[in-house]
Amino acid sequence: MPQFLNTQDADFEASFTALLGAKREDSPDVDAVVAQIIADVRAHGDAEVIRLTEKFDRLELTPETLRFSEAEIEEYCARVSDEDRAALELAADRIRAYHARQMPADDSWTDESGATLGWRWSAVSAAGLYVPGGLASYPSSVLMNAIPAKVAGVGRLAIVVPTPDGIANPLVLLAAKIAGVDEIYRIGGAQAVAALAYGTETIEPVDKITGPGNAFVAAAKRRVFGKVGIDMIAGPSEILVIADKYNTPDWIALDLLSQAEHDESAQSILITDDAEFGQQVAAAVDKRLETLQRRDIAGASWRDFGAVIVVKDLDEAAALSDRIAPEHLELCVQDPDALSEKITHAGAIFLGQFTPEAIGDYVGGPNHVLPTARSARFSSGLSVMDFLKRTTLSKMTVDSLRAIGPAAATLAESESLEAHGLSVLARLDALNEK
Amino acid sequence: MPQFLNTQDADFEASFTALLGAKREDSPDVDAVVAQIIADVRAHGDAEVIRLTEKFDRLELTPETLRFSEAEIEEYCARVSDEDRAALELAADRIRAYHARQMPADDSWTDESGATLGWRWSAVSAAGLYVPGGLASYPSSVLMNAIPAKVAGVGRLAIVVPTPDGIANPLVLLAAKIAGVDEIYRIGGAQAVAALAYGTETIEPVDKITGPGNAFVAAAKRRVFGKVGIDMIAGPSEILVIADKYNTPDWIALDLLSQAEHDESAQSILITDDAEFGQQVAAAVDKRLETLQRRDIAGASWRDFGAVIVVKDLDEAAALSDRIAPEHLELCVQDPDALSEKITHAGAIFLGQFTPEAIGDYVGGPNHVLPTARSARFSSGLSVMDFLKRTTLSKMTVDSLRAIGPAAATLAESESLEAHGLSVLARLDALNEK
Repeated sequence: MPQFLNTQDADFEASFTALLGAKREDSPDVDAVVAQIIADVRAHGDAEVIRLTEKFDRLELTPETLRFSEAEIEEYCARVSDEDRAALELAADRIRAYHARQMPADDSWTDESGATLGWRWSAVSAAGLYVPGGLASYPSSVLMNAIPAKVAGVGRLAIVVPTPDGIANPLVLLAAKIAGVDEIYRIGGAQAVAALAYGTETIEPVDKITGPGNAFVAAAKRRVFGKVGIDMIAGPSEILVIADKYNTPDWIALDLLSQAEHDESAQSILITDDAEFGQQVAAAVDKRLETLQRRDIAGASWRDFGAVIVVKDLDEAAALSDRIAPEHLELCVQDPDALSEKITHAGAIFLGQFTPEAIGDYVGGPNHVLPTARSARFSSGLSVMDFLKRTTLSKMTVDSLRAIGPAAATLAESESLEAHGLSVLARLDALNEK
Repeated sequence: MPQFLNTQDADFEASFTALLGAKREDSPDVDAVVAQIIADVRAHGDAEVIRLTEKFDRLELTPETLRFSEAEIEEYCARVSDEDRAALELAADRIRAYHARQMPADDSWTDESGATLGWRWSAVSAAGLYVPGGLASYPSSVLMNAIPAKVAGVGRLAIVVPTPDGIANPLVLLAAKIAGVDEIYRIGGAQAVAALAYGTETIEPVDKITGPGNAFVAAAKRRVFGKVGIDMIAGPSEILVIADKYNTPDWIALDLLSQAEHDESAQSILITDDAEFGQQVAAAVDKRLETLQRRDIAGASWRDFGAVIVVKDLDEAAALSDRIAPEHLELCVQDPDALSEKITHAGAIFLGQFTPEAIGDYVGGPNHVLPTARSARFSSGLSVMDFLKRTTLSKMTVDSLRAIGPAAATLAESESLEAHGLSVLARLDALNEK
């Protein structure tokens, strides 16, 4: 049974705070192991990556077979059904179109002092994308990570994907090909992250690493941060559905379950202004759990972390939503646009009853890599911005240096940074002598 | 003596690689100490912050005096000279104008399937800014951190600044006031970072923490990352000047010294296509070092990490610059705009001989918080973007769900996520029955 809360209850605030603070993930402390793996890969390169791949993935490789050949990729791609291929291509087209609109503009202007100011954006030269192996090897995540990188203009995009016992997912390889990935390596774990960050004889180092992974991968990403850029470290998935009584309970139940089935640590919350509707949804969840393939996982998530919260009105729902700062937020209400205006903190909002969150996981267009664990308060989903960086530009004229240089010299003096001040004053003195 | 390299020398590549890889900073391992401080502040709140402030800053506080009162702030601000105040205001106006242009636009559109897609930006609700105490207490850094936050629309901006022995810098308080900071606390160290991240009885928690600090502050920021957002962890400052012979050697020398005087770990590099000019600049540096106030620091930095690199032409200079990915890049050449076009990786570019880097530290307009240690390959200087986050929006119509829903269901099935698929199919089935 999930928790049932009602904002009218005396103990609501305590229960809601406990729900917000519930620790859903126990990350094993693998930092020492990971530090050793990274040091070993830096010291021994390919040989160490190959040794660890044999150990963990039961797969014997050579420097020549670390990377999938073009022929192998073609062979795997040929195994994909026409239906799956068409679905991947539709998804890729829509993700590409959405992310293309995110490209920021360069700017340049001359201010009243005569100084030219501005900035320009440029892409990261090389990026690496971690793709988990086994069950969590999702072709959709390949599209969601690789397409923004390519839209941003990343020149070289390398994927690492472990293939335990040599088994690869044809859809992952096809997704990589559709997204324009340049290199695919059949390695995983902390050793793959180390290889991307520091390079080996065979693998050129990259500048940025993104993509999800297990505790070892997350720890390795934290460790190489600084040497390379990384994306966020994602936690278990979450959904918040705000629904009024004008909804089909079974649809809302399925939306809640579509997060719950990801992971026993996932969290699905329904907020409704109709207590009876809340009960109907909970009953529909139970019914679906009788037959769902992943009912063990989804059932554990719903039982341990699920919640139905009854509010007195939708304004109260919006306020609670902002305290949750959900990764995914569905607004299944009569006027979703109006309710959306009242929301400040959410990774992605899905408006109206015909926009189940699963649309956003695959084909909507927006990215499905989104901030978890309340981090939507301060961070955003993956986008082209993650693969771009900005260089600021400034150019003084003689007049603009005369106009603003003295203030710089004054501030430099106040900070006891004499050379800073002199670098301005020496120029101003020379100009005044002319 | 700094290093002299020439790209024509046989051992250039080895020497240049060594220069790039030189470890300039020895960060003490303070992680265990910092972890304990954070745990103690979480457990004991104000009392622990007060205890540690007495221990480290020799300052007795109460919950009532943790924060500067409005009257105190006014009193400190009144001590600032008119010249300093005018310089701070000019700097603030220019920084505000530059950052206001960075504000990204929301977007919303309807695609060919009838779906409405888009995103909107919103500001972080509350941000905290760390300001170092003592010698490194720079009012310019207050402006550079606080103004982008306020331009972005951060509702509540709190500063923490240690005041060892109770001594505060009036310019820091005035800069905070000019920038629109809402709260100023006289605390520092890891305890101040913990108080901002987790809150105490007196200090409300924030969502994002920015600003420079010592090893304890940096370790604390790393530790609270996830609970709150943080900015980059900055390393020692760097400047690269590309200069041809049509420059005054003394000006270039001062530009190199203006980074060197920050820190013995700072790095100043000159690249020139004229060996004789390189010697003239080195001689000018030596001459200035005879009298510079901070000659011990600047001299050590120049001796240990400085370099003069002679190249055969400016194209070669641009290529080396991209390998360095400098924090600050001055282009003191006849056609700086043309050379700038050849640069991809740099935090900030200063064009022409009348744009000394110190202009950018104070009054140019662009931010002076910039990526160090080659991280300009993948990251950008501080901007309004650091205080904004994006929520993606999608809204399907019945027609758009019919158009793209089946592909989502296909992909969900290929990933063995049944509930994802059912959440789409249940809706499509109901629509088809109508």
